[in-house]
Amino acid sequence: MHDPSWRLKGEAKRLSILNSIPEKWRLEYPVPPATELRDVTGDYIRQYLTEREIKITETDAVDIVAHTSTGRWSSLEVTEAFCHRAALAHQLVNCLHEVFFEAAIEDAKQQDEYFAKHKTPIGPLHGLPVSLKDQFHVKGVETTMGYVGWIGTFEGKQNDPRNGTGESELVRELRNLGAVLYCKTSVPATLMATETINNIISYTWNPKNRLLSCGGSSGGEGALMALRGSPAGFGTDIGGSVRIPAGFNFLYGLRPSAGRIPYQGAANSLDGQGSILSVIGPIAPTARSLTLLFKAVLGQEPWLYDPLALELPWRDEVVSETRALIEKGRAGASTLAFGIMKYDGVALVHPPIARGLRIVEKTLQRLGHRVIEWKPPSHAIAVELFSKVFNMDGGTDLKYHFGLSGESRAPQVIGTEDGVQLTASEIAALNVAKREYQKQYMDYWNSTTEVTGTGRPVDGLFCPLAPHAAVIPNEFKAFGYTGFVNLLDYTSLAIPVTFADKKVDVRSADGSVNDSEHIQWDYDAESYDAAPVGVQLVGRRLQEEKMLTLAEYLGEEIAQDAEEGV
Amino acid sequence: MHDPSWRLKGEAKRLSILNSIPEKWRLEYPVPPATELRDVTGDYIRQYLTEREIKITETDAVDIVAHTSTGRWSSLEVTEAFCHRAALAHQLVNCLHEVFFEAAIEDAKQQDEYFAKHKTPIGPLHGLPVSLKDQFHVKGVETTMGYVGWIGTFEGKQNDPRNGTGESELVRELRNLGAVLYCKTSVPATLMATETINNIISYTWNPKNRLLSCGGSSGGEGALMALRGSPAGFGTDIGGSVRIPAGFNFLYGLRPSAGRIPYQGAANSLDGQGSILSVIGPIAPTARSLTLLFKAVLGQEPWLYDPLALELPWRDEVVSETRALIEKGRAGASTLAFGIMKYDGVALVHPPIARGLRIVEKTLQRLGHRVIEWKPPSHAIAVELFSKVFNMDGGTDLKYHFGLSGESRAPQVIGTEDGVQLTASEIAALNVAKREYQKQYMDYWNSTTEVTGTGRPVDGLFCPLAPHAAVIPNEFKAFGYTGFVNLLDYTSLAIPVTFADKKVDVRSADGSVNDSEHIQWDYDAESYDAAPVGVQLVGRRLQEEKMLTLAEYLGEEIAQDAEEGV
Repeated sequence: MHDPSWRLKGEAKRLSILNSIPEKWRLEYPVPPATELRDVTGDYIRQYLTEREIKITETDAVDIVAHTSTGRWSSLEVTEAFCHRAALAHQLVNCLHEVFFEAAIEDAKQQDEYFAKHKTPIGPLHGLPVSLKDQFHVKGVETTMGYVGWIGTFEGKQNDPRNGTGESELVRELRNLGAVLYCKTSVPATLMATETINNIISYTWNPKNRLLSCGGSSGGEGALMALRGSPAGFGTDIGGSVRIPAGFNFLYGLRPSAGRIPYQGAANSLDGQGSILSVIGPIAPTARSLTLLFKAVLGQEPWLYDPLALELPWRDEVVSETRALIEKGRAGASTLAFGIMKYDGVALVHPPIARGLRIVEKTLQRLGHRVIEWKPPSHAIAVELFSKVFNMDGGTDLKYHFGLSGESRAPQVIGTEDGVQLTASEIAALNVAKREYQKQYMDYWNSTTEVTGTGRPVDGLFCPLAPHAAVIPNEFKAFGYTGFVNLLDYTSLAIPVTFADKKVDVRSADGSVNDSEHIQWDYDAESYDAAPVGVQLVGRRLQEEKMLTLAEYLGEEIAQDAEEGV
Repeated sequence: MHDPSWRLKGEAKRLSILNSIPEKWRLEYPVPPATELRDVTGDYIRQYLTEREIKITETDAVDIVAHTSTGRWSSLEVTEAFCHRAALAHQLVNCLHEVFFEAAIEDAKQQDEYFAKHKTPIGPLHGLPVSLKDQFHVKGVETTMGYVGWIGTFEGKQNDPRNGTGESELVRELRNLGAVLYCKTSVPATLMATETINNIISYTWNPKNRLLSCGGSSGGEGALMALRGSPAGFGTDIGGSVRIPAGFNFLYGLRPSAGRIPYQGAANSLDGQGSILSVIGPIAPTARSLTLLFKAVLGQEPWLYDPLALELPWRDEVVSETRALIEKGRAGASTLAFGIMKYDGVALVHPPIARGLRIVEKTLQRLGHRVIEWKPPSHAIAVELFSKVFNMDGGTDLKYHFGLSGESRAPQVIGTEDGVQLTASEIAALNVAKREYQKQYMDYWNSTTEVTGTGRPVDGLFCPLAPHAAVIPNEFKAFGYTGFVNLLDYTSLAIPVTFADKKVDVRSADGSVNDSEHIQWDYDAESYDAAPVGVQLVGRRLQEEKMLTLAEYLGEEIAQDAEEGV
């Protein structure tokens, strides 16, 4: 039996990605199988790099820009170093969809000429390589979004003049800011999956433990960055797609509220679905890198170019106020208060996640912050509403795009194909139910003023990103921990905490108490060993400045406690 | 044949409204028919009022608050004066749905006690009577929204505990601010009409010419305020419903972008329809009154209580920047530039509207501002998209609510009853088409930078509110002039300009050139004589601070030129 044509097309594209990597950066010998070598981060990938390349690629975005914008490092050497490391990363875990190193190197050279001539950087991201999830259009580069049927087309449309010509609004702004674009990262076809799998690159593995998933849908970003093949990048998040891969790869990731980072001109699934909007957010190894990217993009006034962007410039005053609270706290006053939710009433968490939350709780207590048990409106309702929104077109969109090539659908893809479309009246009723839920949650948040002792409601909420650490393929169980944030349109950050440890994270002795039992008992300490554990810091809507400031502060403190153990 | 029961119910409610007016304020003699006496504003209504009442009720909101918040006028005397004048207004033009003067007077007395005790006002609207369109819930008061089937229910739901108990979020905030609530104003059932007609109060007439419409759907607000039965109030606008009645009654009205004034807890039609959101906006006889109300509400931080409200406080710095531009302009520099659109390519305007725009153009030129002919993306497309959104449920919502009582539907109500619901996929495609149109319009707006000479795009756009002045019943022809703003979610203000004049506004000699011919030739100078003429000042999205500042400035200048004639 012959392979179907879509398989051949996917395979051809897979090979063309590999072939777009310069000969000199190809791995000579096959990588050992994951069963023999789980972890390809750190020393493993470093063996292929020079000291200088290691130094550059293990510097965070803030420090890179400090070097490139003062001429200490050239854009060219930084770009080449990251291109090299990204090329290696892809060969280790399949994390790239598009490789355009030549264009990047050309751009970097022009930046260096500009700097030599004007003695000033192009913008606040001068010389910073930035990776992009494969939803963004870049001139001369394809966008497949993981669909075989999109190969050689514009978003599945044959002979469309926009194919390879235009750029997404965010791409235009990143170029203005001085960022260097060099690769696009892997996604699951449809974007509606918490793992990264498609019929082009097959599966993107977790670099820390190649038996596990890198998460999704911005999985390529997560995997690439775990290997330090990128200092910072942009993913998208409609149900956890920035935060889950960030958490699964020991990274920071921001899910801003809708309307801050411009989505204009980017490819998407379910485009035009207006009940829960997909948003773009930065991912990076340090919290301050997220701040750098987020603030830089707002400086481009995206609201003048994207009709859905809000005229809400970066608010320095919120940063100052938040920092003042932090400083007072350091001086001994109880100035901040946080909710903590260890169980959402839907899915019990695995031991590594429970331990991650205990570390966070310890940190908050050590710092003198009030910690409040979170008793919100039912999260089961949030999951129900969220699922209805995602399935409102009965799978029409995903069936159409899979149908372009006839390719198979991965089991990890979420969503019905029953063809049952909600009507306008049903969608309106759903929107009302969503708004009422948002109102209840808002009222609950307000009500915590009575127990914080700060005169304000809680400053943020800590909760899991998922019931488990970076997950065993096909074992992702519940997206409610991230999805409720999208339903509420709240600001949320993934914060790295620790790694699963088979010696410490053993099964709890007590039985479980509800339908979610299987999630608890599915846990296998051996498989999960070394899997990154992240948590989520959730703030109210449009609180990006505050939450980024808190994440910069608490992330470091949590890291300190994680090292000491609890 | 017996009257159907819905007619009796509507009639009973109509009588109960009249009966809720204190005996002392009822008109002894019948009002002359409109054919004999068109205009009941000014001296006509004044005959029933004391000098003191006239003085108070003809003071604008800003000056009223200046008096009440310093103890020069008591809340009680101000409240009583407006209650009296509102009672008269209703008897002249049928503009009220709910009358709760006793509660208002009780509230006013408490305010006076508060002031006597604390020597300080309750808030920035201390003692200001504020009228509300009959979509807002007020404790102890019914909300019918013009539906007979809603009488005695909560939004059509029988035995609902919320009936008469809760208050809309805006109402809560207005009370915090010190406003006195005393009446709710008439609307067309469904709210989807540009006249105000329902089976309760029948028809709300234009006080300036009682053969004409007061506009809609916030028509009761417009009519009440034209008679100075209210110094300021709130309407809602999904296609022109604040601006049309403002323009038809020689008032200012603001249609803010979505997310500024909280809609939480107000009744609505098509609730949950998410493609074009209805918004709440203030209406008043002076522009600065709109600013007072708008700014005061933002001071209540509605984003903490309404999940759809944006955290966007009043921006004083935008006011300062705009005022600085105005002052430079007065000093002779060409600092501001405006687009002007006299014809949208869909509906030609009547002579009074053409003259109104000439007055505006003259004012702008006299002030040295650049005036640019507006050549936007097709407005016909905007009208088409807008109509699709409004009809997306196939009339299900309106049929349901009319069906509660079996009442008849007025011919002025816009919208299909074909029962054809758009599906989720069709709505998504419509949302994409809308976004693409918004993007085109945004790009066009940006492109005017090349011709303004200010280094910025145009600061605003002047255009008609409708093809005609306050309209002959059943003759409203085209809502595209206001509707495109809702599709774009731009900021827009109605600004009063002049009055139709049968001696001046004669038919143009040249024939018309397109499908809209009838709108031109329907014009009848005699019928329209004295009808208020307003225009629209449109700004980009979320530009309320700038547009209010411009309206305060230009409104006065336009009024000056209008008096002198062009």
